[in-house]
Amino acid sequence: MARFSFNQATAKHWPLDEVVAGCAAAGVPGIGLWREPVQEYGLARAARLVRDAGLTVTSLCRGGFFTDGDWRTENRRAVEEAAALGASELVLVSGGLPAGSRDVDGARQRVADAIGELAPDAAAAGVRLAIEPLHPMFCADRCVIATLGQALDIAERFDPAVVGVVVDTYHVWWDDTVYAQIARAGRRIAAFQVADWVTPLPEGVLLGRALPGQGCVELRRLREAVDAAGYTGPIEVEVFQADLWSRPGPDILAAAVTGYRSHVL
Amino acid sequence: MARFSFNQATAKHWPLDEVVAGCAAAGVPGIGLWREPVQEYGLARAARLVRDAGLTVTSLCRGGFFTDGDWRTENRRAVEEAAALGASELVLVSGGLPAGSRDVDGARQRVADAIGELAPDAAAAGVRLAIEPLHPMFCADRCVIATLGQALDIAERFDPAVVGVVVDTYHVWWDDTVYAQIARAGRRIAAFQVADWVTPLPEGVLLGRALPGQGCVELRRLREAVDAAGYTGPIEVEVFQADLWSRPGPDILAAAVTGYRSHVL
Repeated sequence: MARFSFNQATAKHWPLDEVVAGCAAAGVPGIGLWREPVQEYGLARAARLVRDAGLTVTSLCRGGFFTDGDWRTENRRAVEEAAALGASELVLVSGGLPAGSRDVDGARQRVADAIGELAPDAAAAGVRLAIEPLHPMFCADRCVIATLGQALDIAERFDPAVVGVVVDTYHVWWDDTVYAQIARAGRRIAAFQVADWVTPLPEGVLLGRALPGQGCVELRRLREAVDAAGYTGPIEVEVFQADLWSRPGPDILAAAVTGYRSHVL
Repeated sequence: MARFSFNQATAKHWPLDEVVAGCAAAGVPGIGLWREPVQEYGLARAARLVRDAGLTVTSLCRGGFFTDGDWRTENRRAVEEAAALGASELVLVSGGLPAGSRDVDGARQRVADAIGELAPDAAAAGVRLAIEPLHPMFCADRCVIATLGQALDIAERFDPAVVGVVVDTYHVWWDDTVYAQIARAGRRIAAFQVADWVTPLPEGVLLGRALPGQGCVELRRLREAVDAAGYTGPIEVEVFQADLWSRPGPDILAAAVTGYRSHVL
C-alpha cells in the first residue's frame, strides 16, 4: 500500500474529515484533494487535519481553466493552497474553447502562455504544475490538451522540477503512442492516476469512469511503463461515477483498494 | 455544389428511393450509402435507382468490424456491394476490442492483417478500402483506429489505389497533429466527411454530431487542408443526430446544403 493514494473525488459525497479518518484507519498513506471541499472545510484546518492524520496530500485538483477571465487569480490561489496543504503537485486541467470560439490553436497557445506566467509563482511556492491531458472527448469544453505528447510539448519548455505532466489511465489508454510518450516523459511524470474505461458512456460523459479492473484498460501495463520511465511516486485511484458515489465512503475506499491491488500492482 | 455529397445516414429515416429522388431534385450530385438500407431495397435495384437518378455513390458505409467472427464473409460482400453500386470507396470502421479483451495492440494488429487479406479482393473489384479513424471515445467499442496517423501507418503498407483513409472532421478535429497528418496523407485521402462537434454529448455518444456550423470545428480550415493535400473528391455531410432525424428528409437535406455552403466551402 506504500504508493496507494485515494483521490477524494472517488467518494465525492464523503465529507473531508471522514474521508481523512477513513484513509488513516485503512492504512492508506496518501490522499488526493480537491479545492472546493478544502475551501469549504477551511484551508488551514484541512491542512492540519491531513497532517494530524499522518496522510500525504499527493495532489491538489485543480488549477487551469485558462480561458476563464479570472484564471490568474484563481491559479495563484490554487498554488498557495497546494503549498499550504503540503501538496507538491497541482493538477492543471487547461480548460476548453471559450464560448463561441473555434480557435483551438489559439486556446492551446494561451494555455502555454498561462503556464509560463504561473511557473515562477509555482517555483517560489515549491509546487510543481502538473499538466493533465484529458481524453479528446473533453477537448471542446474542458481541456484543449488532449494527448500526453501535447502536454509534454508544453512541459518541456520549463524546468522539470516546476512543470510536469499527469498520466491518467482513463485519458490516455487509447493512444497508440502512449508508451512512447510515457518513456519520453520520464521524470516529468508528476502524478499517475488510475481509472478504468467502460461503455456505454453516460450523458455528458464525465461520470463514465469505473474502478480499476471493471473496464478494458491495461492498467498494470501502464503502471509498469511509468515505473520503467523512472516514476516512483504515488498511484492515485480517481473515479467519477454516480453509482459509485451513492455507496458509503468506506465501501468505496475498500473497493478502490481491492481494484488497485488486483489490477494495478 | 459540384463536390457536395449527402450521406444518407444524415436522414436515417428517409427511405432510399425518396432520398435519391430528393437529392436529384435538389441538384445534389453525390450520395453516400449504407449497406443495410441498400440490402433492404435490393442491391441491383438500388444500383439502378441511383444510376437512373444520375447520382454518384461517393462512398459505401461500411466494412470493417474485423473482430467479428464473420468479418471475412461480410467484408467480401461489402466489396462486392460497393462495386455493384459503382462506389469507388468502401469505408472501413475497424471495430473495437473483442468482448472482455484488454488487448488493444492485438486488436490493432488484427485490423492491419485483415486489411492485408481484403486488399486483393478490393483491388480486383476496383474498390478502394478507406480506413476511417473514429474519435478516441469509440476506441473500446467501435474502432481501435483512433487517429489519422494510425490509419496512415496501416494504409501506407499498401498501394494507394487500393487502401486510403477517410478524414471525418468530427473524428479528427481535436488532434494537434491533424494538419501534419492530412499533409502526410496526400492522395491517400479517399473520402472527406463533415460533421460538427457540440456538447454535451448524449448517452452512448454516437448521436452527438451536429450540422456544419453548429459546433466548434474549423470545418473550412480542414477542407482547405485536404484540398491542399491534393484531394479533389466529394465532400460528404454525414451527421448522426436524433433531433435532426426527426425532421422531414427534404428539410434535413436543405439544412445540410446550407451548412455546407456557409461553413465548408
